[in-house]
Amino acid sequence: MGDAAAGDGFEARVRASFARQRVMETIGAALTRVEAGAVEIALPYRADLTQQHGFVHAGIVATILDSACGYAAFSLMPADAAVLTVEYKINLLRPAQGDRLVARGRVVRAGKTLTVCTGDVVARTGGQENVVATMLATVMAIPQRDDLKE
Amino acid sequence: MGDAAAGDGFEARVRASFARQRVMETIGAALTRVEAGAVEIALPYRADLTQQHGFVHAGIVATILDSACGYAAFSLMPADAAVLTVEYKINLLRPAQGDRLVARGRVVRAGKTLTVCTGDVVARTGGQENVVATMLATVMAIPQRDDLKE
Amino acid sequence: MGDAAAGDGFEARVRASFARQRVMETIGAALTRVEAGAVEIALPYRADLTQQHGFVHAGIVATILDSACGYAAFSLMPADAAVLTVEYKINLLRPAQGDRLVARGRVVRAGKTLTVCTGDVVARTGGQENVVATMLATVMAIPQRDDLKE
Amino acid sequence: MGDAAAGDGFEARVRASFARQRVMETIGAALTRVEAGAVEIALPYRADLTQQHGFVHAGIVATILDSACGYAAFSLMPADAAVLTVEYKINLLRPAQGDRLVARGRVVRAGKTLTVCTGDVVARTGGQENVVATMLATVMAIPQRDDLKE
Repeated sequence: MGDAAAGDGFEARVRASFARQRVMETIGAALTRVEAGAVEIALPYRADLTQQHGFVHAGIVATILDSACGYAAFSLMPADAAVLTVEYKINLLRPAQGDRLVARGRVVRAGKTLTVCTGDVVARTGGQENVVATMLATVMAIPQRDDLKE
Repeated sequence: MGDAAAGDGFEARVRASFARQRVMETIGAALTRVEAGAVEIALPYRADLTQQHGFVHAGIVATILDSACGYAAFSLMPADAAVLTVEYKINLLRPAQGDRLVARGRVVRAGKTLTVCTGDVVARTGGQENVVATMLATVMAIPQRDDLKE
Repeated sequence: MGDAAAGDGFEARVRASFARQRVMETIGAALTRVEAGAVEIALPYRADLTQQHGFVHAGIVATILDSACGYAAFSLMPADAAVLTVEYKINLLRPAQGDRLVARGRVVRAGKTLTVCTGDVVARTGGQENVVATMLATVMAIPQRDDLKE
Repeated sequence: MGDAAAGDGFEARVRASFARQRVMETIGAALTRVEAGAVEIALPYRADLTQQHGFVHAGIVATILDSACGYAAFSLMPADAAVLTVEYKINLLRPAQGDRLVARGRVVRAGKTLTVCTGDVVARTGGQENVVATMLATVMAIPQRDDLKE
């Protein structure tokens, strides 16, 4: 998927861009795995990220999964491209509760302009994982622009 | 839309539930309008909520819009129901930048179990508004359960 | 929305392209209104388009609404562009039954490459209309290509 | 996934309901595989199902994939339940061209009321398959009702 040359140095590019997503530090999320076309982000449970029943808010679940999908796409883009989410759909499958959430995004189809990704969030407690959300997303590569440096 | 009786006291119920969404305090969002079938949530810009280009992260945009849609649905539900988001789709239309974001959710079709909502997020700077995102969401009413009190 | 010049002759272009969508003749759908950024397609009820309960199949509802949205976007594109649907989400709100279905698509945000549209399908019986479906769609302009003539 | 007892006789129920979807005969689609939680529908290419470029229309692609997902969900439901699609999102990944399209739907999460499914459509030409679309869908079980017999 994608031009092999395009991915040169992709891990460093993904890590550098993720480090500039200030919201990730705010919510306590960490980039835990970067492969060509697949990215994982982990978020330990925090009570200050919850909705009214004490589960992690669906929007926060979407925040880490959107970034996991976006960076999965970004890992296959040319080195000078910027990445923007066009749209996504998310289904919430179970309450987002557990010791930590792990978002895994992967590329389904990489195109020159648009890349389609899918991904899941699992809640981990001890050694057990339950899928709490699944996403289908469209991500766009923006050609080199000075105002959108990654 | 919905049984009129069902909405009795809806504003107090929405405000009480919103106050328990701890993530809203964490990101600095406020409930600014509650009508039967329509809810507005405002979020002043904060640099610690941004993605890599300095725009508010799409997941945070979705967080306030998901809650605006969910509470729009909740306002028409029976007083003892709990509300959960089943799924949503969001299109990001412009970079989320400005002095503040305002999410407006409204009910399209209220059913006994499922309610369909739509909504937008606008970015306000001075007196000007630009739509930055639009959502189509499915929300579920959960009949009275002790473990899901609103 | 969009460059005014881009729309020159848009009605003729939409009508010509619609006439080449052979599926529309197969299901009996007609183009009933073309404006800049808004298109309407009508489909009289036919029993041979139904699902197992006798309602028009959700996929057929989506077929006319997808085309209504796509042509709403196409009406604002440059004269030499081709149009392709990137993705859409549809919510089915009520059973699709009635004398005829009318799909109305409109542009929410027109961009150079991507256009976001929304639309509804109503079921008409006598003078009464009920909304049976709502869509949020992303449509792409493909620059002039010999293999994708509209 | 789902109560084993619930699936008793599921294949006969799926086949009987599919046979009542008159649109499937109209477009020439056939039910080619039924398992508990997974259903396949095949559609030979027909020029009278195409959009303006000669590809099968996205709405027809969605028609077979929506039914594949819906029947995958239905196969795990109680014998007296009816099935309705709540909503779906579909991404079109490649032009739908080839000798035949094959839609494969499978259950991601089966609940008492709502079931979430995913699925793909591949285009087959000779022995080669290309994924042309992917869907994420929400399907609802309607308890026994005389007006919605499957």
